[in-house]
Amino acid sequence: MTSSNTLRKVQVVSPVPADIDIANSVEPIHISQIAQDLNLTPNHYDLYGKYKAKVLLSVLDELQESKDGYYVVVGGITPTPLGEGKSTTTVGLCQALGAYLDKKVVTCVRQPSQGPTFGIKGGAAGGGYSQVIPMDEFNLHLTGDIHAITAANNLLAAAIDTRIFHESTQSDKALFNRLCPPNKEGKRSFSDVMFKRLKNLGISKTNPDDLTPEEISKFARLDIDPASITWRRVMDINDRFLRKITIGQGPDEKGKVRETAFDISVASEIMAVLALTTSLADMRERLGKMVIGNSKSGDPVTADDLGVGGALTVLMKDAINPTLMQTLEGTPVLVHAGPFANIAHGNSSIVADKIALKLVGPGGYVVTEAGFGADIGTEKFMNIKCRYSGLKPQCAIIVATIRALKMHGGGPAVVAGKPLDHAYLTENVALVEAGCVNLARHISNTKAYGVNVVVAINKFSTDTDAELSAVRNASLAAGAYDAVISSHHAHGGRGAVDLGIAVQKACENVAQPLKFLYPLDVGIKEKIEAIAKSYGASGVEYSEQAEKQIEMYTKQGFSGLPICMAKTQYSFSDNAAAKGAPSGFTLPIRDVRASIGAGFIYPLVGTMSTMPGLPTRPCFYDIDIDTTTGKVIGLS
Amino acid sequence: MTSSNTLRKVQVVSPVPADIDIANSVEPIHISQIAQDLNLTPNHYDLYGKYKAKVLLSVLDELQESKDGYYVVVGGITPTPLGEGKSTTTVGLCQALGAYLDKKVVTCVRQPSQGPTFGIKGGAAGGGYSQVIPMDEFNLHLTGDIHAITAANNLLAAAIDTRIFHESTQSDKALFNRLCPPNKEGKRSFSDVMFKRLKNLGISKTNPDDLTPEEISKFARLDIDPASITWRRVMDINDRFLRKITIGQGPDEKGKVRETAFDISVASEIMAVLALTTSLADMRERLGKMVIGNSKSGDPVTADDLGVGGALTVLMKDAINPTLMQTLEGTPVLVHAGPFANIAHGNSSIVADKIALKLVGPGGYVVTEAGFGADIGTEKFMNIKCRYSGLKPQCAIIVATIRALKMHGGGPAVVAGKPLDHAYLTENVALVEAGCVNLARHISNTKAYGVNVVVAINKFSTDTDAELSAVRNASLAAGAYDAVISSHHAHGGRGAVDLGIAVQKACENVAQPLKFLYPLDVGIKEKIEAIAKSYGASGVEYSEQAEKQIEMYTKQGFSGLPICMAKTQYSFSDNAAAKGAPSGFTLPIRDVRASIGAGFIYPLVGTMSTMPGLPTRPCFYDIDIDTTTGKVIGLS
Repeated sequence: MTSSNTLRKVQVVSPVPADIDIANSVEPIHISQIAQDLNLTPNHYDLYGKYKAKVLLSVLDELQESKDGYYVVVGGITPTPLGEGKSTTTVGLCQALGAYLDKKVVTCVRQPSQGPTFGIKGGAAGGGYSQVIPMDEFNLHLTGDIHAITAANNLLAAAIDTRIFHESTQSDKALFNRLCPPNKEGKRSFSDVMFKRLKNLGISKTNPDDLTPEEISKFARLDIDPASITWRRVMDINDRFLRKITIGQGPDEKGKVRETAFDISVASEIMAVLALTTSLADMRERLGKMVIGNSKSGDPVTADDLGVGGALTVLMKDAINPTLMQTLEGTPVLVHAGPFANIAHGNSSIVADKIALKLVGPGGYVVTEAGFGADIGTEKFMNIKCRYSGLKPQCAIIVATIRALKMHGGGPAVVAGKPLDHAYLTENVALVEAGCVNLARHISNTKAYGVNVVVAINKFSTDTDAELSAVRNASLAAGAYDAVISSHHAHGGRGAVDLGIAVQKACENVAQPLKFLYPLDVGIKEKIEAIAKSYGASGVEYSEQAEKQIEMYTKQGFSGLPICMAKTQYSFSDNAAAKGAPSGFTLPIRDVRASIGAGFIYPLVGTMSTMPGLPTRPCFYDIDIDTTTGKVIGLS
Repeated sequence: MTSSNTLRKVQVVSPVPADIDIANSVEPIHISQIAQDLNLTPNHYDLYGKYKAKVLLSVLDELQESKDGYYVVVGGITPTPLGEGKSTTTVGLCQALGAYLDKKVVTCVRQPSQGPTFGIKGGAAGGGYSQVIPMDEFNLHLTGDIHAITAANNLLAAAIDTRIFHESTQSDKALFNRLCPPNKEGKRSFSDVMFKRLKNLGISKTNPDDLTPEEISKFARLDIDPASITWRRVMDINDRFLRKITIGQGPDEKGKVRETAFDISVASEIMAVLALTTSLADMRERLGKMVIGNSKSGDPVTADDLGVGGALTVLMKDAINPTLMQTLEGTPVLVHAGPFANIAHGNSSIVADKIALKLVGPGGYVVTEAGFGADIGTEKFMNIKCRYSGLKPQCAIIVATIRALKMHGGGPAVVAGKPLDHAYLTENVALVEAGCVNLARHISNTKAYGVNVVVAINKFSTDTDAELSAVRNASLAAGAYDAVISSHHAHGGRGAVDLGIAVQKACENVAQPLKFLYPLDVGIKEKIEAIAKSYGASGVEYSEQAEKQIEMYTKQGFSGLPICMAKTQYSFSDNAAAKGAPSGFTLPIRDVRASIGAGFIYPLVGTMSTMPGLPTRPCFYDIDIDTTTGKVIGLS
């Protein structure tokens, strides 16, 4: 891509201006230019305005004979609540590779949830001179994927409650008459989706009129146990008052009230399906087999049992195409899927990574970010995402900051919104060195997958040379392939050139195959225990509820799925206050749930909030539009 | 536009195939071609894939010196539950004007709600050989406008409950500290949106530190009365279990439970704002002044009081641009806004109509559809939409069917999903003639606005010549400018050529100014009574609640707004069973509500459901995707 005319090296200013000011200082390149540099023609994508395009999945079929580029995953050490710059590093590295090192490169990132944009957190497009632009389009609506997920999720929810209601008021015969009504000639037929249920029930008849009364009852009555329903409604808003609600209180619903809740949309299983699917046909199948709860006799009830799997796929048919955007320095970005990093696996989509690997080709680079610390994000990237994609990364980056290492070394608590303690602003090599136990464990855990580990030290202006060397030394001692100081926040791609060179070497010099942390064909508990061991736990303790669920999922035939731990990102252990590299603790499993369509079992370690709230003065107070220019102001 | 190469005359087949089969039989034209025929260059629009584009509002500024084309509104007689083909007629007429009569034409229609697409109703793109295509893109997601409305509506809802919660747990001082926190230098400042509230409170100070404790309390404490909240959450799904719910039952919400409900998204006031706004600045103002309820002392509380008006506008900034699509015969369509025809005004957007009128220019035609029967749709088009737009239609169409006229003449009840009675399938001129009283009243009511009325008789295959002539005669006798038989469903534009010619003459021969049904500067009751009289009522009866609300809105200064009646579309009266042209009845007003941002007061005549449900076997059973071609199947 040396001949590209779209790349540009941004002139930086010091001190670094506000993110939105930097983003607005650059006129984005028309996205068709960015696409053209990837050898995409207008047939390969749909434009969504001037700066976004959906790359069609058909590109993957067309390029199936092409070879992949290098695959790099970006994880991090256990973070402070302020975040250690994983997104920024991912973007900065790609700017270095593309705009300074003449490599073909694609950045793969998650679509941010819109809810927090108006709450405390603000946007999620990177920061400083390493950003995805236009920032407002990245953070708001994008190309509608999360809205499609919300619609699909809630259509399924409405289908569940409506079905329970209609079953409660109708006889088997009436129910069957409505499900398979006679046409003008008096003939009944099954719709295609009904054959899936018939097959599961062991009924091979194809004419509804041939069913016995017993078969009619089995077919028409899902007999959902309301207490077993795990499917919730979702909304892409921080709305704490929907964390626990009672529905069905209208007079027409005849007392069929039920307690339930809304989650934020990115916590929907459909988001996890989008992130893990590999084709339209695969997505259709996964959406249909999502389990929403059990029948009163304990059998799983699926979206296809409710007849809605096809409609869900139709709602998601455009969402399966990743969105092409650009960095500040004109390198391409694929934004796709953003599953909750907690009850789901927190990685961007398989299809975006696959398309990107083909587009960059041999010698090119795809850099993809994994959510949270490497104990959660990189672990799930390897054991869930790579397991389903069949892809193997050559290099894993671990982003570290002096700030977070000092915290792990015993520094005072870091609290969002409060000024940083003096310890974080002046040199303290001893604190940094002590904190490197956290980094070291992430390095050895990650290295065990068979990849070369490069530590990216995300440099802040208060960091000193002695502190930075201490991290580099500790990284190499712990087995890192390299450890590089990177100043992409202040300098854009130019600040990450050394990191880019290190990543290049790491990718070119990997020889080992990918090794998973656990095989799939062992019991759920064995898999949980393998992961717990990687956290430093000496054992696992299961609640009664967890034991019951493990038994149920095993009986239902789901024990062969990978495990997606729902654990705090603030510690290797279940205790967010345990910094550094705790060991010898017992990991408590409070409950175990499953996303059968997405394809994983998720044990809950502690209480996980799946619906954020708004503070007294949310970000939205500052957000407005300049009605003369149409520009968004106050977005951070 | 005679030189256009995009128009095409579709070859029709008899009997008329299924809508989806007709839609799929035509390869749509790339939307940039359709745009080019309207003299739009790529700077004027954003593409959303190959067959949709958002026309930017800036087109209106650019063309402000250009003259408008003719403006035609399509209403209907009081319908049966099956609908009388108003959308189909709107589309068919435009196909005739554009593809057969060489006129510049733009069709303006509402975006359909996605909820009913999966319920009973199916899609809303017209039918037969008069459709908007691609049908699946028209019915699903479109360009995300309804999703943006859902997001904005629910952000405001979350802001309300969160604010009540935070006010309940904090002192005035703590609240003020959080709303106006000191920066690093210890200085406080108000955000821009806060000055709106300060101004309303009569506080002219600009430095937060200068506020007295009393002013701090007035400013920081909205003191919302939970019982007065009229703002509900919305979802674009038929979810009957959300018709009445209790929220805030989570332990962290500390017992602040509240009964509320979800409406379907198109019932959101934000949808009505989108439909009635005239510019970005106007939308910002309307969204900010939406009233969500009252303070405990009876003052209205607005979105801007909650600090969220700017963020709502940011969420809606792309939604304000109408979406360009095409008919089966390649004429342009602007799809924009779809306010509930009941508690809102049921018309597509002012900005789409305005842009369209400039684009077609003098001698061209803009045909826009008004929801429900003309008693509601056309009345609101004139008295609300035209009042805010300043536009004047030359011609109003009233769509009639033999089927509906027979029902008004005393035919048996028409019930959706049940076979039609024999009376509707064989000739019965007497029934038709008797039913024309309904049509006659719609004609005289509509004519009173100063427009020429053309009756479009939407021909069905079972209609006889004698029946059709009876309608034509009755129409002319009632004062219609013309009455024309139209077979656009079976024949596309060719079937509506006579209608097109009649509309052309009607537009060229209008001389009267637009006359509203009521002036704005009289009391709420006087306005309600003027509308009731047009229904045939001899008087109006107000409930105690209605009286109280009228008094409150008058006191709050909102009595100068137009009136948006929420009444059944199945009769001129409040009783859906009273067909024909009932008169002498007393119209009961059960309650009166207001959409201050959208700009109307809406009296409730009877109970209005704002959240539809799903039947036992919803449409979604048939909807799926062909995973090899990616085509949607089973959408009706």
